[in-house]
Amino acid sequence: MIRVAVLGCGYWGKNILRVFDSLEGCELRMACDPRPETLARAYGRSDAFRTTGDVNEVFGASDIDAVAICTPVDSHYSLARDALLAGKHVFVEKPMTHSLESAQDLAAVAEQTNLVLMVDHTFVYSGAVRKIRSIIETGDIGRLHYFDSVRINLGLFQPDVNVLWDLAAHDVSILLHLVDFEPQWVSAVGATHYGNFENQAYVTIGFEQSFLSHIHVNWLAPVKLRSTVIGGSRRMIVYNDLEPSESVRVYERGVTFNNDPENRAHALVDYRLGDMFAPHVEKTEPLARGASSFRNAIVQGTPTDSDGEAGVRVIRILEAAQRSMQSEGRRLHLEEFH
Amino acid sequence: MIRVAVLGCGYWGKNILRVFDSLEGCELRMACDPRPETLARAYGRSDAFRTTGDVNEVFGASDIDAVAICTPVDSHYSLARDALLAGKHVFVEKPMTHSLESAQDLAAVAEQTNLVLMVDHTFVYSGAVRKIRSIIETGDIGRLHYFDSVRINLGLFQPDVNVLWDLAAHDVSILLHLVDFEPQWVSAVGATHYGNFENQAYVTIGFEQSFLSHIHVNWLAPVKLRSTVIGGSRRMIVYNDLEPSESVRVYERGVTFNNDPENRAHALVDYRLGDMFAPHVEKTEPLARGASSFRNAIVQGTPTDSDGEAGVRVIRILEAAQRSMQSEGRRLHLEEFH
Amino acid sequence: MIRVAVLGCGYWGKNILRVFDSLEGCELRMACDPRPETLARAYGRSDAFRTTGDVNEVFGASDIDAVAICTPVDSHYSLARDALLAGKHVFVEKPMTHSLESAQDLAAVAEQTNLVLMVDHTFVYSGAVRKIRSIIETGDIGRLHYFDSVRINLGLFQPDVNVLWDLAAHDVSILLHLVDFEPQWVSAVGATHYGNFENQAYVTIGFEQSFLSHIHVNWLAPVKLRSTVIGGSRRMIVYNDLEPSESVRVYERGVTFNNDPENRAHALVDYRLGDMFAPHVEKTEPLARGASSFRNAIVQGTPTDSDGEAGVRVIRILEAAQRSMQSEGRRLHLEEFH
Amino acid sequence: MIRVAVLGCGYWGKNILRVFDSLEGCELRMACDPRPETLARAYGRSDAFRTTGDVNEVFGASDIDAVAICTPVDSHYSLARDALLAGKHVFVEKPMTHSLESAQDLAAVAEQTNLVLMVDHTFVYSGAVRKIRSIIETGDIGRLHYFDSVRINLGLFQPDVNVLWDLAAHDVSILLHLVDFEPQWVSAVGATHYGNFENQAYVTIGFEQSFLSHIHVNWLAPVKLRSTVIGGSRRMIVYNDLEPSESVRVYERGVTFNNDPENRAHALVDYRLGDMFAPHVEKTEPLARGASSFRNAIVQGTPTDSDGEAGVRVIRILEAAQRSMQSEGRRLHLEEFH
Repeated sequence: MIRVAVLGCGYWGKNILRVFDSLEGCELRMACDPRPETLARAYGRSDAFRTTGDVNEVFGASDIDAVAICTPVDSHYSLARDALLAGKHVFVEKPMTHSLESAQDLAAVAEQTNLVLMVDHTFVYSGAVRKIRSIIETGDIGRLHYFDSVRINLGLFQPDVNVLWDLAAHDVSILLHLVDFEPQWVSAVGATHYGNFENQAYVTIGFEQSFLSHIHVNWLAPVKLRSTVIGGSRRMIVYNDLEPSESVRVYERGVTFNNDPENRAHALVDYRLGDMFAPHVEKTEPLARGASSFRNAIVQGTPTDSDGEAGVRVIRILEAAQRSMQSEGRRLHLEEFH
Repeated sequence: MIRVAVLGCGYWGKNILRVFDSLEGCELRMACDPRPETLARAYGRSDAFRTTGDVNEVFGASDIDAVAICTPVDSHYSLARDALLAGKHVFVEKPMTHSLESAQDLAAVAEQTNLVLMVDHTFVYSGAVRKIRSIIETGDIGRLHYFDSVRINLGLFQPDVNVLWDLAAHDVSILLHLVDFEPQWVSAVGATHYGNFENQAYVTIGFEQSFLSHIHVNWLAPVKLRSTVIGGSRRMIVYNDLEPSESVRVYERGVTFNNDPENRAHALVDYRLGDMFAPHVEKTEPLARGASSFRNAIVQGTPTDSDGEAGVRVIRILEAAQRSMQSEGRRLHLEEFH
Repeated sequence: MIRVAVLGCGYWGKNILRVFDSLEGCELRMACDPRPETLARAYGRSDAFRTTGDVNEVFGASDIDAVAICTPVDSHYSLARDALLAGKHVFVEKPMTHSLESAQDLAAVAEQTNLVLMVDHTFVYSGAVRKIRSIIETGDIGRLHYFDSVRINLGLFQPDVNVLWDLAAHDVSILLHLVDFEPQWVSAVGATHYGNFENQAYVTIGFEQSFLSHIHVNWLAPVKLRSTVIGGSRRMIVYNDLEPSESVRVYERGVTFNNDPENRAHALVDYRLGDMFAPHVEKTEPLARGASSFRNAIVQGTPTDSDGEAGVRVIRILEAAQRSMQSEGRRLHLEEFH
Repeated sequence: MIRVAVLGCGYWGKNILRVFDSLEGCELRMACDPRPETLARAYGRSDAFRTTGDVNEVFGASDIDAVAICTPVDSHYSLARDALLAGKHVFVEKPMTHSLESAQDLAAVAEQTNLVLMVDHTFVYSGAVRKIRSIIETGDIGRLHYFDSVRINLGLFQPDVNVLWDLAAHDVSILLHLVDFEPQWVSAVGATHYGNFENQAYVTIGFEQSFLSHIHVNWLAPVKLRSTVIGGSRRMIVYNDLEPSESVRVYERGVTFNNDPENRAHALVDYRLGDMFAPHVEKTEPLARGASSFRNAIVQGTPTDSDGEAGVRVIRILEAAQRSMQSEGRRLHLEEFH
């Protein structure tokens, strides 16, 4: 039985409380939040676990094996580090930390302490993304051409991070989970229409083999979109996370290109327009599947799809994007970020 | 009565033939195409005008006042120039030419010859774009924040230009028609998955007052999208060109930002979620409205919304984007392009 | 403080528990269900109220002022009646009862005992239906022509009632809430592809002034639709309950009819194609608004929008539809059902 | 070479002219319309055929083998009859005639004269309906449960027929083409909000084996819908004629019913939620495919999918629906209509 404490009981913390409370093999023992009224309203079954406003009480508790951290981004690093050093396994909200350096240090501490460090890259545990990964693995999609993601809405402004660290963290984690190519460079541009942090950003990530990826995130859009297109030479996938029943659509469409140098007319290209297929997608709550994965990593030592290393890879892209955004969108090579 | 000749009778040329044939105050006199079978099949009422495979016959014809040019992009400049020098008014397919230098020369020739030069920026004449322009002009939209356009489909590969000169020409002409700000810089990135020209591109255009615009064009997408979001401080507009009946939607949504330095919490931002309004949009065929505008410019001297200068402004952006694409997406300042 | 007991803690009962638990001016005191494990899992805050498997314990409890009944339909009548006779106010799940006779008796008992009887016609308390009601009340919609509702999905088969009593109960309650005309006749047809109860049904309800209404309900549809069109002479409304942000759309469309007997050509009819308007719709949970209304009826005596009489009117239609379905879809006049 | 004359050159007549003009093996020789200006504007290539305002000129012309009739419904019968008696094959717009008696007579005349009589049931020749037919023929759909069709828009009021004869004619022809069951009864209800003919109607058609079909047609709807759901025990099909690229969707969804009399709980029903599949649908213009079928019937004697008998079957349903509509929606058995 893994005994769990949750740090941070706000919007997402409530979900974490609920999921660990109902997860087999886990027991929710403590909830911690500095705001008493947040703590009081966090979760109906508040009688089932003890509460505190002091994180040190959690770290010092001998009956806590693991902590789930859902606090503001800037506190992730120190809380996760302290938890690991106190001998607790760590499940930390995305983004793992707010800088590459701290992410790398955290992953190192986890390795030294031999404890499980897992980042809550929720979408990686969704039925849709797992289905897409399995389709790509079959090779049916052919040569991968591009990944284009749009995640926009009239969204909650985060108080401590810009839209990149908040929303693009999702797309980058999905992208890195789906493709096995190495990213090579990043460029980004953003705009700060309100406040001190970018509310809107475009990130381009270049990979080997001219695989191109692009992410549009925006807190100031009138409509909500969460849509990703993955182009391949044989098939193309559209993943619409807001579609209730057919979120993944696989199109047998593309072009057949006759690379005949003597003929530069339209006839070079033939279009294939075939069937569309929307595979059934498992509805299991991604967070619940992620939490199970965390438990299994602790109990059985099975690897998760979002360990410390995966967290570092995401943060490397975000940090490069952040720096590019601050230097006129200059293309930054990832080999400089290590 | 304006007597018109059409050069180039392919896909779009057929529409040009039809529109000028039925336009009041115009008379379709000649059609010219080097491919005899194309010429033969171009338009049902072929008895109504004479045909030729030789452009010089058109330029030398004393009963032709104006020519409409719908030939491959690379021939626009020399054909349009020759036509102007032969004393004909010119209606030329977008993009006006394939380089800034040639575009500027063409505009200059038109001015010297005192003839009408008009670019077929079709969307500028659509009911939707005109409605959006009128909404922006009222000021109800507030401060303009961004313009984000997506124009993708499994599209016809052009034999002589990349996706930028083919598709982004539309979005750039719409953008420049809608906003009165001066564009300041351009950066672009593309990928060539097939053939010799980019099939996919992302263009970012920075304006004064941190108004940011971004265009995604793609010939390799499984689904067709033609969607533009225009974000403003008081209202936001979504323009979906594929929506048959409500292509323009105006959202009374946004945030109210309390820029209080002592409070960096969520409370800084209040969301306004108001009504949505889809104004009725005139269905008149944009090409027909454009052709009327061309006729009026000739007959009455009224200015068009896509004269030579407008053409130059679009080409300046496309050329900068092209060069940025060839230099790692570097941000290029438009003052260098003059 | 109204002290509430909930009878039936299944799927919908959980929502009732949550809503009454968090409703100001109410206190959740008891939950009752014959299935111990259902009772145990019903609601997180189970420490806050006592539980029982015996309804008589609820009826006999002196600290209970009101009961909310979410049990199978066939038990509604006797439980609600017993509750009223035990001096408790009653909030009963739709449909109020399973026959007109029992519905009328229940309404009579409520009146005799001077207690509040309210049916949970949830949609009547939704922001969307209330907005539509307010639009109709302004008269802007003109003469009402028709109401057409489709409520289909691959739905939960109810064990004790057919699709009419389960799903059409919603549409009938919405319809009767929206229009002030008197219904005159009902006809219905259904099919039983599985089991003993109709899985699919079409109900037509005729009103005064040739206002026609039609309802399609189906448990065997591959896609989920909840869509209602209300046609008027000046405006038409489309209500799509599944649309997250613009569930109510008002169209300024219609025809202008020139009833000139000498001219029977198309020209008789002119089409008006105007703007579309999607008013902002309050997102308050309908069940919570309904529960507030119940509380206010008890405390302040304010009328609810779904009292016993409203329940009887809905049941009258359902019973007529049921009988029509059993007699070859014969049109049954409602004056026979009293 | 089949030499064709077209009677009636209005809206749909123009399409007929174009299609027969470009159909291999056919030659468009004459166009006939009593309205000179309609005739003049009907079709660009008007030089290619001769025109007349007098039908008898067509019937008497020795160089005409076949006539296509696109005149008002009330004239179909006499024109088609005269054409057959003049020795011409007949392609007649739907609905074939305006009464069962005339339809039967027309089919009999065609048989006696040994000429081809074909009704323009356009949708029967669409790629979508043919794909659906082929899916049903494989048996993969399982037992057929229902057919539910909605065809509504703010539609052109027809001057001489109600919405049933205008729009439901399409749905009935699709329905009878898709299913091989025998229809048994019909009931219908309509409303006349404007003019002298019903603008809105609901038709229910009962078949053997409790296969139920229902059609909703409406000229007074604010939005355009053309959607059909076909429910089967193993798969269900949604056909959305307005969807540009995935008009036919096949859902592997349904219920598994355990007809155990001892258990009347929810557990009786298990839901299957499987993949969705949208087969590629041929885009060939249905009218062109229909015209080819007409030509082949004349030249090679191959049967069409909409011969006189098919026309009679559709008219039988429409006449029964018309009569039911006039007698309070009474269920009328088709054996009475012969």
